[in-house]
Amino acid sequence: MFLRHSSFLLQPLRNTSTDMRYVERMRLLEYWGIKDTALTSEFRRSQFLVMIDRKPLVRRKGNTIQFPSHSYTDLQKSLGEYGFQFDTSNSCLLDAIDGPSNDVVCYIRDICVEKFYFHVPLLGTSLKAVEPPEDSPVQKEDVMRELGRCLDAHFVDIRTAMLGLSSERERNLLAKFQSLSRWSRTYLRCPKCGAPLKMRVSKTGATCHTCPQVYYPTCSPVAITLVSDPTDSHALLIRHKASPPALYTALAGFAQFLFKPGESLDDCARREIAEEVGLPVSKVMSLNRTQPWPMPNSSLMCAYYAVADMSLKIDACPTELESARWFSRDQVAAALQRTLSDPLLKGIPRDVNERQNLLYIPPHGAIAHQIIKAWVERQLHVQNTETNLHYTM
Amino acid sequence: MFLRHSSFLLQPLRNTSTDMRYVERMRLLEYWGIKDTALTSEFRRSQFLVMIDRKPLVRRKGNTIQFPSHSYTDLQKSLGEYGFQFDTSNSCLLDAIDGPSNDVVCYIRDICVEKFYFHVPLLGTSLKAVEPPEDSPVQKEDVMRELGRCLDAHFVDIRTAMLGLSSERERNLLAKFQSLSRWSRTYLRCPKCGAPLKMRVSKTGATCHTCPQVYYPTCSPVAITLVSDPTDSHALLIRHKASPPALYTALAGFAQFLFKPGESLDDCARREIAEEVGLPVSKVMSLNRTQPWPMPNSSLMCAYYAVADMSLKIDACPTELESARWFSRDQVAAALQRTLSDPLLKGIPRDVNERQNLLYIPPHGAIAHQIIKAWVERQLHVQNTETNLHYTM
Repeated sequence: MFLRHSSFLLQPLRNTSTDMRYVERMRLLEYWGIKDTALTSEFRRSQFLVMIDRKPLVRRKGNTIQFPSHSYTDLQKSLGEYGFQFDTSNSCLLDAIDGPSNDVVCYIRDICVEKFYFHVPLLGTSLKAVEPPEDSPVQKEDVMRELGRCLDAHFVDIRTAMLGLSSERERNLLAKFQSLSRWSRTYLRCPKCGAPLKMRVSKTGATCHTCPQVYYPTCSPVAITLVSDPTDSHALLIRHKASPPALYTALAGFAQFLFKPGESLDDCARREIAEEVGLPVSKVMSLNRTQPWPMPNSSLMCAYYAVADMSLKIDACPTELESARWFSRDQVAAALQRTLSDPLLKGIPRDVNERQNLLYIPPHGAIAHQIIKAWVERQLHVQNTETNLHYTM
Repeated sequence: MFLRHSSFLLQPLRNTSTDMRYVERMRLLEYWGIKDTALTSEFRRSQFLVMIDRKPLVRRKGNTIQFPSHSYTDLQKSLGEYGFQFDTSNSCLLDAIDGPSNDVVCYIRDICVEKFYFHVPLLGTSLKAVEPPEDSPVQKEDVMRELGRCLDAHFVDIRTAMLGLSSERERNLLAKFQSLSRWSRTYLRCPKCGAPLKMRVSKTGATCHTCPQVYYPTCSPVAITLVSDPTDSHALLIRHKASPPALYTALAGFAQFLFKPGESLDDCARREIAEEVGLPVSKVMSLNRTQPWPMPNSSLMCAYYAVADMSLKIDACPTELESARWFSRDQVAAALQRTLSDPLLKGIPRDVNERQNLLYIPPHGAIAHQIIKAWVERQLHVQNTETNLHYTM
């Protein structure tokens, strides 16, 4: 099995520890990422996550959402029935996972001499649904619902999935999936010379044979900051124009306010707060927690804490924000409780007068939820070391 | 003066505090970033940093390097004499800095009623030197040397400047300068449809009017990790193929090993170590320190600490690394001392047999220097809090 790969990348691992299998997996992933023929030859052995029209195919268990993978055979059968074609062109490489049989054991005269472990690719297949003809009795939504049922799952909005998936690993996989799909659909031509790009099967890079130049999918760091007052009794929360009614969250850069080249992350946090609410802050501190986020573009949310003076006038950026206000810990705690007991936000008010009230914070899948929860529960500890002050979650 | 700008972006600031001037500066920078006409009208009032053929124009003071800015008038005179043209097309927006007169005071009947503060753009102008005709007695290098002398400075290799600049702010400005210059020279056509892009005067974005889509310069996070053994007495340092002889540094992702979408930064650090030296690590911890770095592409170096088992075999990636070895704290301390007393690395050995010895670490401008120095001086403190273990610099 391991001879399929270069000996550097996949050496036989004898009685391999979990740790060494991690190393193996990372190197294999790198290899599949680069070698189109190797990844193509694994296609039918792969497991697949599915998205149609940017809606991931998930499974709901009570209040939580899971993101199950499917075998090539199951998927081909179901997708084929509904007229979808899937192949390497609309799939991207997400991970290397344990193969269906975990061990390949090598015997010489009935004595086990070696054990090999091997992995198969986890791919993401992103498809577009075609609108049926106007006179068709079947709607696109019906097709999606039926297809979902075939695979014991259903399609949901990507934001709902990101906020609701209970496993951090599955959230990160979905973020990677959406980022690579979007990137590979955008990078068709060389930005320098306009010649067609050759996209890797893995969708982790694209080469211009004219320049020659290689382009890689990038991701932009964004600071997301819990701004508190000097007594740590109030938090500054905001609503974007696109936020659900009555939901407030922590401050973060947005769209064109993303990380700028030449900044440190601390600079980025400080600048974003100045741009969005017009407040200077002190004690900008990293909370050592990051989360990949695929909307609107591929971002890496980096958690920060900062302190601002409550007596200064908030001057919210009118093009981005609908509201920016200070709330007491009790007010935020109540919104946290409501969100925890209603994570699908079913109780979002429809009355326009309630829109600006603080009733919800983002559900648990968002890093904002974790920062706000840690603040409410006084889990953001200040540590005064010799060298500097800093906080941890 | 403030009427030049939208009232939202530049309100008159009365007796403005330093903090509020920071807010003002950030918003102005955002405004200039987007509004081509506003930035163009400031061009002749701007201050300029200069790069020719990717070599920044710096000033040396003893063992340190400074990155001075020049006025439009001085620059136009000197550059004009040597046949260079500079204008908005080869300039990018780096910062908003204090104007030549800091205050504009407004009097009514001799009574001061208002004080306004204002800023001017700090631009980076990146030029290409043309080779003189073959029969010319003057070489390109002579022209650069003379032009440098005119401006009381000289041109150096960008890496030398990044490693040698004593001010963190100037290093970050150079990183931004090189990143924006490179990006604006690459993004000429829309990667999606191939139509010409309209680049902003600031070089902070480019629009396709056919799609329509806006592209922004991005930067990729890279984890740079001090790997230590469980007793914290040895550090794992590496040499890249392009490293100067006898110089070792901390492990970091390289070129195609950059941050992948869908990873957290901790994942990134762990994966890079697996890919580059084939070792699994435990206790991957952020050191809360980041540095923008412009080579080979725009990166954000994020400092990490991790622990690996010294008894495991190092399996260095042969395409990237020339050497990866464990060194005792005393060995690293000696290299640190040598580097501190010879920051321009004049004593780099020429003898090929000494190439693999540890004599130097990167000079003080590199975040690797700061991490290694902190480790040698036992300034990476372990803090065992209730929630998790973590280290700070």
